[in-house]
Amino acid sequence: MTTGITSEIIKAVEAVKQTNPMAGSITNTVTINFVANAQLAVGGSAAMVYLPDEGEFLALAGGATYINMGTIFPVYEQTLPHTAKILHSNKKPWVLDPVAVGIGQLRGEILTCFKDYKPSIIRGNASEILALAGLWGLVGGTEKSNVRGVDSTDCVVAAKEAAVALALWTGGAVAVSGEADLITNGTGIVRSLGGSFFMEKITGAGCALGGVMAVYLTATDPFTAAIAGHAVFNLAGAKAERAVSAPGSFQQKFLDELYLATAEEIANNPIEVLQA
Amino acid sequence: MTTGITSEIIKAVEAVKQTNPMAGSITNTVTINFVANAQLAVGGSAAMVYLPDEGEFLALAGGATYINMGTIFPVYEQTLPHTAKILHSNKKPWVLDPVAVGIGQLRGEILTCFKDYKPSIIRGNASEILALAGLWGLVGGTEKSNVRGVDSTDCVVAAKEAAVALALWTGGAVAVSGEADLITNGTGIVRSLGGSFFMEKITGAGCALGGVMAVYLTATDPFTAAIAGHAVFNLAGAKAERAVSAPGSFQQKFLDELYLATAEEIANNPIEVLQA
Amino acid sequence: MTTGITSEIIKAVEAVKQTNPMAGSITNTVTINFVANAQLAVGGSAAMVYLPDEGEFLALAGGATYINMGTIFPVYEQTLPHTAKILHSNKKPWVLDPVAVGIGQLRGEILTCFKDYKPSIIRGNASEILALAGLWGLVGGTEKSNVRGVDSTDCVVAAKEAAVALALWTGGAVAVSGEADLITNGTGIVRSLGGSFFMEKITGAGCALGGVMAVYLTATDPFTAAIAGHAVFNLAGAKAERAVSAPGSFQQKFLDELYLATAEEIANNPIEVLQA
Repeated sequence: MTTGITSEIIKAVEAVKQTNPMAGSITNTVTINFVANAQLAVGGSAAMVYLPDEGEFLALAGGATYINMGTIFPVYEQTLPHTAKILHSNKKPWVLDPVAVGIGQLRGEILTCFKDYKPSIIRGNASEILALAGLWGLVGGTEKSNVRGVDSTDCVVAAKEAAVALALWTGGAVAVSGEADLITNGTGIVRSLGGSFFMEKITGAGCALGGVMAVYLTATDPFTAAIAGHAVFNLAGAKAERAVSAPGSFQQKFLDELYLATAEEIANNPIEVLQA
Repeated sequence: MTTGITSEIIKAVEAVKQTNPMAGSITNTVTINFVANAQLAVGGSAAMVYLPDEGEFLALAGGATYINMGTIFPVYEQTLPHTAKILHSNKKPWVLDPVAVGIGQLRGEILTCFKDYKPSIIRGNASEILALAGLWGLVGGTEKSNVRGVDSTDCVVAAKEAAVALALWTGGAVAVSGEADLITNGTGIVRSLGGSFFMEKITGAGCALGGVMAVYLTATDPFTAAIAGHAVFNLAGAKAERAVSAPGSFQQKFLDELYLATAEEIANNPIEVLQA
Repeated sequence: MTTGITSEIIKAVEAVKQTNPMAGSITNTVTINFVANAQLAVGGSAAMVYLPDEGEFLALAGGATYINMGTIFPVYEQTLPHTAKILHSNKKPWVLDPVAVGIGQLRGEILTCFKDYKPSIIRGNASEILALAGLWGLVGGTEKSNVRGVDSTDCVVAAKEAAVALALWTGGAVAVSGEADLITNGTGIVRSLGGSFFMEKITGAGCALGGVMAVYLTATDPFTAAIAGHAVFNLAGAKAERAVSAPGSFQQKFLDELYLATAEEIANNPIEVLQA
């Protein structure tokens, strides 16, 4: 798998750098600026909206879309199901970040209805992946969410079965963030290595990763896009950490390294194949 | 024109640095922090709101107001027309950034009603200026928007006629952002030179420019405020670019240079007079 | 008082660094990212929401909660009174930042109803503290708000009586930000020294301080948490100012110094006891 994925990542990353593809987002207000800047840094273009018909517009205009549940507004009751439906019925790829699944009623209702719209990539921490699989009635999922605000209380490996089940259901890829990020397309399972301790000391590393995966999803399949996104993040994180000693500097340096990373460097960031 | 405008810019920039004038904003959530920090960096004071009566309060309390259409919420249906009406009927200057004109129904309805409230400065990329002129039935406008999310698919010069028509209608100034920024008051047309490639690699340079023009608008006429705003941005962008090699560092250095720029440096940033 | 408070601050700061406590927020969109990053920098965990049942969830799940009135949305009519009531009836500590009290009707209505829910810490500039005391009918308050957008037009000392009255009413602590920050629990009054000129040249220093006080409030009493929050801010501000010459760099360096500050350094940041 590794050789094929390496050349596929190079192709996707270079296509993005050359064509500046637009990946629209409906995302939380906490990290929305960081998401946009990360998408721009890797060569993409960003646009964010809140209203239903604007979600539809971005879904159709962009090569892929990023939906992040972080801070939901009342209008999301209309916007998110409508946008997801448009994405699915038009075979447009999209990334779902089910932040804080288990908190609040509307969040649960929206995430439940996403089951039929099959996001191309689902990314979350272990507790979120477990809770989403549980919400969708899939094997490995938990009945009750262990989500604490936006943090995980479960370790990555505990979510492996749920991640595989989600990927088999959607036909796309699922990524579990944590100590070592786990990515699966339902059959293959890899770990993306590298990264930095400081990625948990700034807000939005996970959200920005979701936005960047949407950018790569405009140029390649979900599994490759997910691995490429994790690779550039873990590469940039490791390089930034070597240059700084605190999170304010890390955030700036990390964006710099996202921008400076070449397609070859990204493709060669180490991955560990757990299951071919 | 140049000598007169130079001394006028010096006067305005120094007045802002000395009096810390408040320019309120109703602006998008993606770049709202960057807008506020840019306004503070040039010597102004910032305040942002969403509700109709709060828009009215800021309109009356501030020396000028910035309205940016980037991420609109449902309540904007009340807030934006009401605030613009208050601004117009109280002869308070304001800056309009018609981000993403052409996307969604509410955005179009609000922008249509802004025609009668004559923004003192309109700033957008070429596609946005063309689309707004089209929406308002002015010469040079396009029937159909070429806006792609928040990006332009038209070049600056293609929007010159539309920019002049908009300025003649409002009696204010219009600025078209792009390769070289074009600014007109309907008769005079100038280009502001300088800037940086990295200004397109971070999100919000255009929004922050709109906010800074609103700050200058508290101290001078629309044409001078627009030129001064572009001058400080193009100056700071060029200086920051010389010091960095990637967008994360650029954003920080750019804010530094906005703050460090003197009135004389800003007034002497090169402009090219296309039409006196 | 000083020796007792010093060891209490050390205990609280170290507890936060070791246990990574979650302090949820309902806060403004302008500085929400900075609030979260500041909370993470001192060792806490952040989560932000807008909806009523999600506010309740965070109130109960977090060790303390931060409510900032900066940019209020229509749904806050439900969210904020409900969340504050849950906090009060469950004896959960919370920090109130009454930003821009006096602007708009809904803001006033919400702040009025907060009187019964007794925030553990109230933090504002002098004009905000005076206006809130006035709104609650307490001694020292002003009938009419002097708030100009988000800025103060009154000096800190003018708000001392109002601050004491508010603290006596809530049974918690009140902090007035300005030239030298004043903190009272109704009987004791101290000034926290240090800080930086640049803290007014970036947006959100006050909001981030509110968020950090909520983090410390998970580990100690309101008066200690308020002093500890001001100490780490004034320490980090002073250290950052010595290293930079402009606000873009200051913001980054300030976050770095928040992270690097040790419990001993924070506890030893100078305070002046005005009233024991």
